[in-house]
Parts: sequence; C-alpha cells; structure tokens
Amino acid sequence: MTRFSEASVLEACDRIAPFIHHTPVLTCSAFNEKVEASVFFKCENFQKTGSFKFRGACNTVASLTESERVSGVLTHSSGNYAQALALAARLHGTPVYVVMPENTPEIKKQATAGYGATITLCPPTHIGRHETAERIRKETGAIFLDSHDDPRVFAGQGTACLELIEEIGELDLILAPVGGGGLLSGTLLAAKHLLPKVAVIGCEPAGADDAARGIALGERVIDFVPHTIADGLRTPLGKNTFQIIRDMADDLVLVSETDIIRTMRFIWERMKIVIEPSSAVAVAPLLNGSVEVKGKRVGVIISGGNVDLTQFFELLEAKL
Amino acid sequence: MTRFSEASVLEACDRIAPFIHHTPVLTCSAFNEKVEASVFFKCENFQKTGSFKFRGACNTVASLTESERVSGVLTHSSGNYAQALALAARLHGTPVYVVMPENTPEIKKQATAGYGATITLCPPTHIGRHETAERIRKETGAIFLDSHDDPRVFAGQGTACLELIEEIGELDLILAPVGGGGLLSGTLLAAKHLLPKVAVIGCEPAGADDAARGIALGERVIDFVPHTIADGLRTPLGKNTFQIIRDMADDLVLVSETDIIRTMRFIWERMKIVIEPSSAVAVAPLLNGSVEVKGKRVGVIISGGNVDLTQFFELLEAKL
Repeated sequence: MTRFSEASVLEACDRIAPFIHHTPVLTCSAFNEKVEASVFFKCENFQKTGSFKFRGACNTVASLTESERVSGVLTHSSGNYAQALALAARLHGTPVYVVMPENTPEIKKQATAGYGATITLCPPTHIGRHETAERIRKETGAIFLDSHDDPRVFAGQGTACLELIEEIGELDLILAPVGGGGLLSGTLLAAKHLLPKVAVIGCEPAGADDAARGIALGERVIDFVPHTIADGLRTPLGKNTFQIIRDMADDLVLVSETDIIRTMRFIWERMKIVIEPSSAVAVAPLLNGSVEVKGKRVGVIISGGNVDLTQFFELLEAKL
Repeated sequence: MTRFSEASVLEACDRIAPFIHHTPVLTCSAFNEKVEASVFFKCENFQKTGSFKFRGACNTVASLTESERVSGVLTHSSGNYAQALALAARLHGTPVYVVMPENTPEIKKQATAGYGATITLCPPTHIGRHETAERIRKETGAIFLDSHDDPRVFAGQGTACLELIEEIGELDLILAPVGGGGLLSGTLLAAKHLLPKVAVIGCEPAGADDAARGIALGERVIDFVPHTIADGLRTPLGKNTFQIIRDMADDLVLVSETDIIRTMRFIWERMKIVIEPSSAVAVAPLLNGSVEVKGKRVGVIISGGNVDLTQFFELLEAKL
C-alpha cells in the first residue's frame, strides 16, 4: 500500500490558491454525442505557463525554506515543468536553472528563458539529463527539484483533479496522461480520496510505454528512447510515482501516434481550444473506443496547450 | 439617423436564448500587460457552428412563419453563415440551400453539408453569388435569407455584445470586425443603447477595405475582389448595415495581412484558443497600437473559430 497521503493534495490546494488559475471545466456536445457519455474536460491548457505543471512547481517552491531558496532551484524538463518552475521561482524571488533536452520545441525554450531561467541544453536521454543537471548543481549550489517524483510536486498536480471533482461532483471514470507520472499520481490521490468508487486510467503513448511495461514487469523501465510526438510524456516514471500508479491505477491504456494527432485535430476543430499532443493522449481512448464510456460521467485532465505553431504560421505567412 | 431599433436586439436575445450557447468572456493577463488595458474577449468561437452567425440565423429562422418555411430557406455565404443557417434551419425542420464561393475552406463546406444543407458552388464574387442564389431560388422556391443585411440577422448578431455588457458592465471601447457589417451593426445597436458613452470601432482587413472606402465616398462599394486571409470578411456591406455603420460607428480601422496572422498566433499561443483570421482583425488594432487603449476597459467580439487545419495536421502526420 502506498504511503503517500491524500491530505497532501488538500494542503497543496490551499498553498497554491493565491498563485494559480482556477481553470475552467469545458464540455462539448459534439464530443458527448460521439462517445455517448458526459465528458468533462479540466482545462489546464489555460493554466499559467500553459500546463498543469505550474501547480506542482508552485507547491514545491512555496514549501521551501528561505535558506533552501537562496542559491536558486534547478531542474531538468522537456519543457512544461521548466516554464512552470521558472515562473514559480520568479514569484518567490529565487534564481532558477533549467536543463532541457536538445529536441525541446523552440517555443518552450523561449518561454522558459522569458521567465528568467538560465537554460542548459543536454542530450535527449534520461542519463543525459541527469548528468547535466548534476554538473549545474555543483557549479551553482542550486537545489535540485524533480519534475514529477517529489511528493510536493505530485500533491500539487493533484489539485487539478480536486477542483474538477469539487465543480462536477460524482464521476465514474477519470483519465490522465502518464509521462513521469506526477499528474497521474496526484490525480489518483485526489480522486480515490474524494470518490472512492471512481476508476482512474492512465493514458500513455505506445511509443513511450515505459509505465505499462514497467508495471507489467514489476519494476521501472528507466533507460529507453521514446518515439512520440507527445513531448511532455517522454520521461520515465519516478520511484514514487511508479509505486502509486502500480498500487492505485485501475488501468493503463496505450495510444498510437496517429490517434494522438487525430484527437488533437478533433479537439482543436470542434472545441476551438489548443491542446498539446500529451493532452490528446488522455482523450484519444474515448474517441477510438479503447475505453468504453457509454452512459458514463467521465473526467479528463487536459494537461496543457504548449504547441510549437511556428511551421503553421510560417505556412500562412508564405501565402501572403 | 438610423431607423433600426435597439429594442430588436433585446427581443432577439429572448427569442434565441433556448438555442444558442451563452459564450464565455475570457481575459488574458499577458495580453492586458502588453496593451496596458483590461480587455474582455467575448468568445463566439465557442458558439454553436463555431461563430456568432448562429445568433442571427437563429433569430431569422425563428421569426419566419410556418408558410414561409415550407419550401426551405436559401442563402449565399463564405462559410460561417452557411453553417449557422443550416443548423438553425435543421432545428426548425426546414430544408436549407446554400450557395458558397468556390474558394471556401474545405472544412466549412463539410460542416455545412454535415448540418444537412444542399450546397451549390459559385464564382467568388458579389455578382457570382447573387446570380447563383437567384437560380436556386427559382428552382426550389426557397425563401432567400441575407447573411448580414436583414434586420433580423443583425439584431441577432447584436446579442453577443448584449451578453458581453450584461456580464462585464461599463466599457470604454468595443471592437468588432466588419465584413457584411451584420456583426458591427448589431454591436452598435446593442452597445450604444446600453452604454451611451462607449466608443465602437469597426475593424477591417486592408485587403477588403470596402466599408472604409464606402463611408469615405458616401456610398457603398459593392463590386470588388477582396485579397485577405480573413475569409469571413470578404463580403461588401449591405444597404442597411452601411447606413447603421455610417451613422453610428466611431471609427473604422484597417489591418494588414501580416498583422492578422501575427495576432492569430499571439491568441492561439497565449490564450490557447483557436480563433479564425476574421476574429484576429478585431484584436490586431490593440496589439499593433493603431487604437490607443492604455488604462481603458475594452470589449472585443471574437467572431469565430473556424479555421482549415488540414495542412497543419497533414504536416504532423507526415512526420510519423
């Protein structure tokens, strides 16, 4: 049984309330008709910095003592946590250092630098990230903050689900994407505490199926090269998130790259909101029928909306 | 002085209430910081059929008698009114015929057909539309409904502004895009009635500046070939909308194609909502500084979110 407290999510909710956006829950009649269910989208794409990660970053930085903050904070991130930590640190007057994989979308690098972070690029592997972060830590004395496996982080991430349930009430099923597992872990802690009967399903790209393989094997799969457009889900599970997901998740489902893109398109075109590929991973199982939801009340955590639109707008400009 | 009644907007509001979405008003702190003002976006991109045009279409069809509806309704439209009328007609069990310019985005043709409309393509000119519509009218006996110059239409369009003011209260300035002038006319009737001191500015692509030229000349400019990405704004003003805009609008501003695209990108990236080029036309004057808003409370009618995303998603799929 997991040792992490559901109460930590409730505490995080109070701690971060002054900093975060209380994001809207949207519905879409075209979507509901298609899947014959009532689906509630918790829109963390409207969160500050464009993703749920600001919640966990805020909770962590706000939990640090003054002496812990003095030399700054440091993390490695494929993008969204970088921006989130950068803004959270700026709001607390703390220097922030971010190690980013070389293949991070340009828009995420720029946004992170825009919040005042010092960025160092690294090879796009688990080991590459860790070695570079360790070097920066030694050079700066900054305190390393994990992007997903720190209990303060996933308690913060769980507040999105907490708000969803407070607003919508009873749900039969909740879906969340799985990368490092912070969002799913926080969602599990919040959901299972507030709605004892709810099923919670983690959704993972088939091209980065380390969580599903790890749970099946009984141990974490940590060194692998992900092949997915869902750039927020290329990280392996952490030790803590592995344990929580193994103990509490009702199921993990895999999503193909084609279905990720098809789902993004459906949501952009029909709901008129910009969601990133990682978010589409948690919606796709409803549209492709791999999770049966007919007649159910379903919550989906839309994790973020940070997409590199450079190519799209360059195409438009080229036509002028 | 215009002879159109502000009360018509209030009546339309009650008439269409059971059919429409009461759309959200969004704000964006990054946007407010950039323009040093409080800007309230009335998001008709979240309206049924993806644009404000559903309001006017609903008000018109709901105002018809049973005998007027029996042979169906007919219109010509560059896209959004087509979908709007198609759905409004379907909700009233009325056949609907739509004449669309050949260069209409594919997504709008498909969506219109999806609501059960019979579509006929025509040359993308003012005259081409009218001649084709007249032929279909003779063939079918359907009643022709104008997309913007019918008082029932622009009374319906004004309900978006009415809702904005009911929710937000006092505003110094309201911006709306100008194509056929239905949205701006309805906005003027609603705004000037509810907020006697408010300034209302129409925003027009420089590549389809028929309204600005017509007002300057003192007569409508009706036969021209528009060159703008804002496909919703390629129509000339109608006789009625010309008169209302001439008598009531505080100003008309022109927007370049580059600024339309730059603005769309800003809104998609920062607000995470999909707006179409025609909507960006009413936001661009704030971002490029052509309308001074420092310290003001500003309303913007976001007209719609129907964008052809085919090329963008084909690019993503090509990378798989």
